[in-house]
Amino acid sequence: MEILQSITENFLRIKDKKPLIHHITNYVTVNDCANITLAIGASPVMAEDIDEVEEMVSFAAALVLNMGTLNSRTIESMLAAGKKARQMGIPVIFDPVGVGATKLRRITADKIIREVCPSVIRGNMSEIKIIAGFQANIKGVDSVASVEDGEQVAQELSQKLAAVIAITGKRDIIASGEKIVRIDNGHPLLSQVTGTGCMATTLIGCFCGIADDCFTGAVAGIMTMGLAGELAQRSLQAGEGIGTFRMRLFDAVSTMTPEIFMTAGKVSKD
Amino acid sequence: MEILQSITENFLRIKDKKPLIHHITNYVTVNDCANITLAIGASPVMAEDIDEVEEMVSFAAALVLNMGTLNSRTIESMLAAGKKARQMGIPVIFDPVGVGATKLRRITADKIIREVCPSVIRGNMSEIKIIAGFQANIKGVDSVASVEDGEQVAQELSQKLAAVIAITGKRDIIASGEKIVRIDNGHPLLSQVTGTGCMATTLIGCFCGIADDCFTGAVAGIMTMGLAGELAQRSLQAGEGIGTFRMRLFDAVSTMTPEIFMTAGKVSKD
Amino acid sequence: MEILQSITENFLRIKDKKPLIHHITNYVTVNDCANITLAIGASPVMAEDIDEVEEMVSFAAALVLNMGTLNSRTIESMLAAGKKARQMGIPVIFDPVGVGATKLRRITADKIIREVCPSVIRGNMSEIKIIAGFQANIKGVDSVASVEDGEQVAQELSQKLAAVIAITGKRDIIASGEKIVRIDNGHPLLSQVTGTGCMATTLIGCFCGIADDCFTGAVAGIMTMGLAGELAQRSLQAGEGIGTFRMRLFDAVSTMTPEIFMTAGKVSKD
Repeated sequence: MEILQSITENFLRIKDKKPLIHHITNYVTVNDCANITLAIGASPVMAEDIDEVEEMVSFAAALVLNMGTLNSRTIESMLAAGKKARQMGIPVIFDPVGVGATKLRRITADKIIREVCPSVIRGNMSEIKIIAGFQANIKGVDSVASVEDGEQVAQELSQKLAAVIAITGKRDIIASGEKIVRIDNGHPLLSQVTGTGCMATTLIGCFCGIADDCFTGAVAGIMTMGLAGELAQRSLQAGEGIGTFRMRLFDAVSTMTPEIFMTAGKVSKD
Repeated sequence: MEILQSITENFLRIKDKKPLIHHITNYVTVNDCANITLAIGASPVMAEDIDEVEEMVSFAAALVLNMGTLNSRTIESMLAAGKKARQMGIPVIFDPVGVGATKLRRITADKIIREVCPSVIRGNMSEIKIIAGFQANIKGVDSVASVEDGEQVAQELSQKLAAVIAITGKRDIIASGEKIVRIDNGHPLLSQVTGTGCMATTLIGCFCGIADDCFTGAVAGIMTMGLAGELAQRSLQAGEGIGTFRMRLFDAVSTMTPEIFMTAGKVSKD
Repeated sequence: MEILQSITENFLRIKDKKPLIHHITNYVTVNDCANITLAIGASPVMAEDIDEVEEMVSFAAALVLNMGTLNSRTIESMLAAGKKARQMGIPVIFDPVGVGATKLRRITADKIIREVCPSVIRGNMSEIKIIAGFQANIKGVDSVASVEDGEQVAQELSQKLAAVIAITGKRDIIASGEKIVRIDNGHPLLSQVTGTGCMATTLIGCFCGIADDCFTGAVAGIMTMGLAGELAQRSLQAGEGIGTFRMRLFDAVSTMTPEIFMTAGKVSKD
């Protein structure tokens, strides 16, 4: 398929260009995000002080904003770095972690979307529905919403915000304006390890740092995480659980090949 | 034994109910705490901004306060979240990491205990003795105190504070009023990996989030960590060290079964 | 060789004395730094609040300052802890992560060097050249500078600052005044995992906490990381990537022996 070909080419370009991916992210999964950036062949930098984020992002190929552990200091830095990135045409990937859980998160996500205009927003179904103004059933930062109307939500929100909308779940949905793609890679174990959502967002950042368009970047990043989940799960032996699975995710991304995308990528378009 | 039966039932209830465990914790081991929460079948949320902690904790089944890397911002958030939790009857589990090391830690632990009234306090022998007003020999955040009078200290402190007191070490001691239980699971390697104490506290939080009483919750959480240490150590092969051991702790918790508790749990009461 | 004998003796002294290593470090690799400290046999403590850092460092055998994720709060704490350590004769090891990337980092590194006078400064070639006042080609926090004139830079800077200067790269260079040593251990995979530079700095801290001089401490710490990289890489099997490699680094350090230093250590002097 044409899209798999495009993903593969972008995958090889990351290894060639080693784009610098600036993250302002949470302290729970920040190490995972740095290591998955290296695993795919890009270069991570984490910097969040208000006195350096604008300067740092100006060298970056993409900016990842993840609000997993918000605080007043980092909110300010996210807005400043985000605006600078947009001025310079650097893609901004936004992960509105747990947006439905608290008023602070709703207000912050709203502010980031209005003031930064992210290129890509990735979340689970609950998070994207909250952003779309729907009421969704949120429990902490995990998703419990239904999938059925996801495609319509993604498309409408994409058009409203002029951003790529990526919903990850059993079936991933990526929408950009009228375009929509579904990915059926992945494994349920991915939801039993912290940081797999954050890492998917980071991988989108790595691809958007070199791709011609963020729609392909989002599809490629999410497919990489899904394939890594499949490979990691398949490698598990008796007695091995989420500790081994988690380690093998990094193995899988660092040993990924164009052939794996071409033969195992499960993507469908209208 | 009756208590093993009760632990097993609670273990299965966690997987059924997936309680949300709100953590305000240190940034050294926060990823481990999130992953061990998922490994046992519960759902972690880490949130620490003063503008959201009260709202977040109101959805939670338990609150874990860990003062490993204190700062003025998180101290305020711990107090606010802790008070809200207590008002709502949500159990608070407190880990006074390195309480003897600095004046800031002693003052903070004292404040949390007085203002929040935690349901469970878990520490090593040095930490619990400091809290009990004894002078103990502290070196950084690790314990070097003697064990002999631990049971008496635990019981007296439990009665004074109306809290479950859990002391982890070679032999773990859990006291609640007059009740006392000793656990002889675990392995010395557990003290050679950072975060095993924090993860024990988190596991207590997971069990207290669904158990009828926090005494059972504390016994169950500590036993889970001890059994995981034994299983992880037993799996090691030549050349494998603390890297592999650490990964296998997560494997062990995520593949734990009722049978393992019933056959390998080593618990004794008066 | 005499220096390998000295490294080996210091390695055994760490396990005997378990020095407490106080870190004020970044939140990306802080867990790795704590675990590598434990792996070598020392004891880590991470504390950064301005109200406790001076008290905490006064119990420590060495202080590690790592500016990977700077912020105004931790800059102040680094300066306070660093000055206290120097007053008490406690070695300070400074890692100027990404010093060339932003003005904030250059100003902060300059301040730490002037006000704290670190015993050891460890960085990659770009970072050390920036500190030496050269213009180097910086991209985020990774090094892209040339190696050829590294030895001269290290020696001159060492004399100017009266500090041990350690440059890590394909060939590591450690200079102290007129003395210079080169280490040829290590493996390129080390640069594909986050935290290996930070962990090298931490290992220097562990050795400086018990060694008679910081030059030997720096050589020993860097060689330990290099040998761990070789052992971890050699253990990899088909399909294993940076996830497994990263875990095996901790295995390698925790199972390191005097024989490994004596037989595999590759060090050369003038």
